Amino acid sequence: MGTVTRIIGIDPGLRRTGWGVIDIAGNSLSFVASGTVTSDGDDDLARRLVSLHDGLDKVLETFHPDEAAVEQTFVNKDAGATLKLGQARGIALLVPARRGLAVAEYAPNAVKKAVVGAGHAEKQQIRLMVTVLMPKAEFKTDDAADALAIAITHAHHRGSATARLARAALA
Amino acid sequence: MGTVTRIIGIDPGLRRTGWGVIDIAGNSLSFVASGTVTSDGDDDLARRLVSLHDGLDKVLETFHPDEAAVEQTFVNKDAGATLKLGQARGIALLVPARRGLAVAEYAPNAVKKAVVGAGHAEKQQIRLMVTVLMPKAEFKTDDAADALAIAITHAHHRGSATARLARAALA
Repeated sequence: MGTVTRIIGIDPGLRRTGWGVIDIAGNSLSFVASGTVTSDGDDDLARRLVSLHDGLDKVLETFHPDEAAVEQTFVNKDAGATLKLGQARGIALLVPARRGLAVAEYAPNAVKKAVVGAGHAEKQQIRLMVTVLMPKAEFKTDDAADALAIAITHAHHRGSATARLARAALA
Repeated sequence: MGTVTRIIGIDPGLRRTGWGVIDIAGNSLSFVASGTVTSDGDDDLARRLVSLHDGLDKVLETFHPDEAAVEQTFVNKDAGATLKLGQARGIALLVPARRGLAVAEYAPNAVKKAVVGAGHAEKQQIRLMVTVLMPKAEFKTDDAADALAIAITHAHHRGSATARLARAALA
């Protein structure tokens, strides 16, 4: 009964891009899958971007999400690091958009606020709350946990009942 | 006689990505085509990256270059601008690499040095020298001229006789 919407959250990075897929049906969030797409640091940059592209595209082909959400990460270290991240992020935005999905972007603070209830949560708290909100969630890396948190944030912001669920869990 | 190698140079940017295609055969460089792929500033970021992807991919499909070269641009304005550029650059590297082309990267100074002979040339000098090196070159924008300069730089650095040609023109 009711429609199920499948969301993929993506936490982009050149070395490791995390992804997490969840289903929303009415009031309930459910875990589908999560993982990490990697690129080989010994490859040249263009090849690494192809690895990320092909890996992410395979995830979309396997799980057929309806909507995508990508973290709006900023690196303040230096221009080189920011450029690198931007390149990986370009791929993370491109892949779902090429498949016709709407792609939402969320700032890290919005993700923390949606999942933990505070804009300055630690990684540990995010992992914990992902498990509270979706007891069956599985993730092997911080990147995959972050990607699930981004998917949950999108569920929250697209105005579903998930927001109430999140608040209830925090009350 | 001899092999002809076709090179595409790409000057990435989110609003305008310049491209230039040249042929190298022994000592001679020849102009094939140039242009600019644009994205609509009113579109969301993911859609804009799809526009750049599809536009560039069409250029590759039309001209079948053998090798690609992309400018290693840096923006020192702010992290936001650098991230934006990185995203466009990710697409510029991805598209030729997905078609199996080797993708070389050149710093702006290397481009200026290869084309003008000095690392601190002005845009005007680059346009002039592109025309000196390839009298039949046509370009309607600075981005297309820069992309041709990047293609010439690659011709130079891949060790062809083009380097001698460039030096002769400057002597």
